[in-house]
Amino acid sequence: MNLFRFFSRGQSAPAARERLQVLLAHERAATGDSDLVNKLRDEILKAISKHMQIDDEKVSIKMERGAQVSTLAVDIEIPFNGNKKAA
Amino acid sequence: MNLFRFFSRGQSAPAARERLQVLLAHERAATGDSDLVNKLRDEILKAISKHMQIDDEKVSIKMERGAQVSTLAVDIEIPFNGNKKAA
Repeated sequence: MNLFRFFSRGQSAPAARERLQVLLAHERAATGDSDLVNKLRDEILKAISKHMQIDDEKVSIKMERGAQVSTLAVDIEIPFNGNKKAA
Repeated sequence: MNLFRFFSRGQSAPAARERLQVLLAHERAATGDSDLVNKLRDEILKAISKHMQIDDEKVSIKMERGAQVSTLAVDIEIPFNGNKKAA
């Protein structure tokens, strides 16, 4: 899991764009739902797109499945006026 | 921001429950939407509750607002059969 590396970059804001990062970690018991992270990925992307215009080319999605922990990292670069949708 | 501390705990799965962690970081430009994290919090919680039963007492939500970066940390302890909703 590259959680630390993921969040340690990009903490200084560039001047003309903003960024949204979503990190999801699911640590499951033996009986757990292994597909939960996948389901939540779609729901969360849908939720985000309600509030801003998302350019598919500016979205990076990384998913890692482990035996006990699955992680999802979504990194969205928001264009200058991309967040005007819900204004 | 306590991002590192948040994710460094709880990475070994307990036997009888599972856990979901959502970490959201919004790094905004000067013109950015300061309330975006708040909006997304509600949407993401709604999305999660579609897929599992969430006990309010087992949910920890921490939000930090900085001048340029806002973060949201949601930590959900899922009861043993809590993820059967979407099965």
